[in-house]
Amino acid sequence: MPTFTVFKGAQDGLPKKSTTTKPDQLSGDNVLVKVTASGVCGTDLHYKTQDMVLGHEGVGVVEEVGPNVKYLKKGDRVGWGYETDSCEHCLECLSGEEMVCAQRALYGFANPDQGSFASHAIWREAYLHLTPDSIIDEHAAPLQCGGATVFAPLINAKPNETVGVLGVGGLGHLAIQFAAKMGCRVVVLSGSESKKEQAMEFGAHKFIAMKGKTAKDILEDDFWPITRLLVTSSAQPAWDVIVPLLAPRAQIHPLSVSLSNLEFPYMPLLAGRISIHGALVATRAVHRQMLAFAALHGIKPVVETYPMTEEGIKEAIERLEQGKVQYRAVLVPQ
Amino acid sequence: MPTFTVFKGAQDGLPKKSTTTKPDQLSGDNVLVKVTASGVCGTDLHYKTQDMVLGHEGVGVVEEVGPNVKYLKKGDRVGWGYETDSCEHCLECLSGEEMVCAQRALYGFANPDQGSFASHAIWREAYLHLTPDSIIDEHAAPLQCGGATVFAPLINAKPNETVGVLGVGGLGHLAIQFAAKMGCRVVVLSGSESKKEQAMEFGAHKFIAMKGKTAKDILEDDFWPITRLLVTSSAQPAWDVIVPLLAPRAQIHPLSVSLSNLEFPYMPLLAGRISIHGALVATRAVHRQMLAFAALHGIKPVVETYPMTEEGIKEAIERLEQGKVQYRAVLVPQ
Repeated sequence: MPTFTVFKGAQDGLPKKSTTTKPDQLSGDNVLVKVTASGVCGTDLHYKTQDMVLGHEGVGVVEEVGPNVKYLKKGDRVGWGYETDSCEHCLECLSGEEMVCAQRALYGFANPDQGSFASHAIWREAYLHLTPDSIIDEHAAPLQCGGATVFAPLINAKPNETVGVLGVGGLGHLAIQFAAKMGCRVVVLSGSESKKEQAMEFGAHKFIAMKGKTAKDILEDDFWPITRLLVTSSAQPAWDVIVPLLAPRAQIHPLSVSLSNLEFPYMPLLAGRISIHGALVATRAVHRQMLAFAALHGIKPVVETYPMTEEGIKEAIERLEQGKVQYRAVLVPQ
Repeated sequence: MPTFTVFKGAQDGLPKKSTTTKPDQLSGDNVLVKVTASGVCGTDLHYKTQDMVLGHEGVGVVEEVGPNVKYLKKGDRVGWGYETDSCEHCLECLSGEEMVCAQRALYGFANPDQGSFASHAIWREAYLHLTPDSIIDEHAAPLQCGGATVFAPLINAKPNETVGVLGVGGLGHLAIQFAAKMGCRVVVLSGSESKKEQAMEFGAHKFIAMKGKTAKDILEDDFWPITRLLVTSSAQPAWDVIVPLLAPRAQIHPLSVSLSNLEFPYMPLLAGRISIHGALVATRAVHRQMLAFAALHGIKPVVETYPMTEEGIKEAIERLEQGKVQYRAVLVPQ
């Protein structure tokens, strides 16, 4: 049987070239996608030592379709993200909430032989998303996880909300763009002034360098209370500074991954009727709305491209670990 | 000017009889209420050493109305709770969310000369709620804070939800009744078996004595995943046992007061898309729906009555502090 190239995690943390078998005939609604670009997400770092194909921000072109494929055809441009299957039978699936299906196939937990650090990948049609014509592959890739992750908590925002974006990185720079185009006021909370100019270009209305500031310092400066806070930084926020910046009934969306407990001051939670919402990327319905919204408004990730080779992956991962990527690393086949 | 009797917190924690002045003529939309019953809530314990009139689960009869009162008249049976004024001007007030108005008057923070441990109280008409005819005063009193607190997080529950009630006390025993009458499945999580029989009579469908049990023990016993959890116990829950009992997208409502941080395992929050909702009693609109619902379904707090005297208050507070009250202490004038 034929094979294609993949890049798997390895014990030394330096992903290695390998191969995955391609069946002679695709079965069911499986689709063979030739990868044209892959984002490199923080989550990939967690798996760099695992024996699995890395990458879950994939885009490419349909090369072959299984017998039950209904909508996609050879040549279609598609992408996929963090979830690639679910049972389609449970209450969650039937409610359009397949991200929390008990049988869900998530990156890192299923399909170790497929990924977007690869020449090809095979996925079910139902979890592939058409790429709008106006979005080039290098930009479409980071939208499949990073874009979907920040779009989901914004989709119910009202246009006049004040959206706080904590952290200006791979997620944050997309959150600012989405929220601004939705008509929200966007307040960016960052460590230093270094990203101020770019944040304002992304659409922020206010930029706050938090370092050394108290809540009082910030509030004195004609501050809009934040109704919806997207936490995109990996460090746990300094809630004593941030809580006074929140409007009553503010919604907090922790989007980055942490292995520690969430800790939040209890009485302000009650007194302000604040809520905290666990999020996990986006359902397919939201994912597709995100792509359409990005196309309509010309929302573009800022990317650094690297070759889809062992060396290119190594370099991208190193820069991501050092916090140097501005703002998303994307691998492209040579 | 005339006065009426009130009971104020005192440094020794034993509330003392005192007086509050009643103006010869009530102003604005103020209403003089003759108190007929007052609940004793856990929050009252926090203020028992403060120089303020205690009590915020008041019911009584309108005795006199100010010149701008429009809807209430002498002889009307009314109640009031944790909030007794707001600005009626800010965005929150205009949105029907006056509980989080920046100018709100909350028990313990405003009006130290008024309370429900008293012969009378003077409040604005806008914050008094008519008591449905079928609810006697001793039962109406605990609904004004305890009832409102547990009803608010249930009002958006769907009938087929599985509501978890953690703790069977003043709040919990009302939560079980409300949720059951809304058509929800009700799972009670309690320490021991001691309250099982009563919990089932309140309407619970399942009772779990948590002590010594792991999540696995509980799940093996034909468990329904909890979609909405009301935390009514004062101790912080053992999340490692409880989180596996939650359905995807479960909503957690911490209702009791704690001075420590909320701590919650971070990854399960994301992976299950769980959300945590700070709550603060109920808006007036929800408060009035709660009273109507309680009347329609004959929901009754289980109460112990004590005389509205220094001695009676002392005894009620002591029993509440010792966890002996079954399920709500109510003071009634002699």
